[in-house]
Amino acid sequence: MQHRFLHRAIELAATNARSSAGGPFGAVIVKDGEVIGEGVNQVTAINDPTAHAEVLAIREACRKLGVYQLPGCELYTSCEPCPMCLGAIYWAHIDRVYFAATQQQAAAAGFDDAFIYEQIPLAPEQRSIPMAHVELPEAMAPFNEWKGNPRRTPY
Amino acid sequence: MQHRFLHRAIELAATNARSSAGGPFGAVIVKDGEVIGEGVNQVTAINDPTAHAEVLAIREACRKLGVYQLPGCELYTSCEPCPMCLGAIYWAHIDRVYFAATQQQAAAAGFDDAFIYEQIPLAPEQRSIPMAHVELPEAMAPFNEWKGNPRRTPY
Repeated sequence: MQHRFLHRAIELAATNARSSAGGPFGAVIVKDGEVIGEGVNQVTAINDPTAHAEVLAIREACRKLGVYQLPGCELYTSCEPCPMCLGAIYWAHIDRVYFAATQQQAAAAGFDDAFIYEQIPLAPEQRSIPMAHVELPEAMAPFNEWKGNPRRTPY
Repeated sequence: MQHRFLHRAIELAATNARSSAGGPFGAVIVKDGEVIGEGVNQVTAINDPTAHAEVLAIREACRKLGVYQLPGCELYTSCEPCPMCLGAIYWAHIDRVYFAATQQQAAAAGFDDAFIYEQIPLAPEQRSIPMAHVELPEAMAPFNEWKGNPRRTPY
């Protein structure tokens, strides 16, 4: 853990909040002691509900390195990641995460993702956004195409 | 629920798997009976671990409509969403989700996100990717900037 990276994430977050460009969140990806990706919340700025600081930092780091996974990398973020970002962190195979503000501090500031944390473990049909499994005979067709394609890139 | 949209999501998924462009997943966003966003898995194609079909369909729909939330919209996806996509669906305020293949069918085909589902509810320090809260006096600075900025766009 190096404090300077967490300070950088907080600085990005504060600058973003001050500039009205987006929400008060910032994140950096570090590899071998160097920042290889930075992100600030841009949800309202670019009309993208997935444009959280962590997601954008991961995307930038992957683009720079030309990879789709980030083993050997650490994420420093101004605030505890939401469930979407947590999923992104797992798919990116990041080594470790450091965060400054907690979920509870974010909630006190009006950014409450506790509700989403509660929804994830529920069965699809029990969630507040109704999710329904529709049985179709061709549901497995994409997976069969995948398995039958010798040029596929596993990930 | 209109079967044609779920068929379209599966068709996108199968075509993507056949073309080796990315994983066997496809999704469409529907508003007022019309497709306003489509996505296929592009994780390996564009080096972006967050480029799941659902995320890309949400981004496209938001871009087209010039909005950062999608109330009044439905998501049709070839496969039950992973936790990251579930988070994205909640942030996007989508009305309803229909999926064809289940988590279990995806796992049988080698796409197992049960592990991530198990990780989300754990305390940060108990997760397989270690996540640590670092207490800093300036942790709340971004939120204070946000609250003090009258030009902020709440979301």
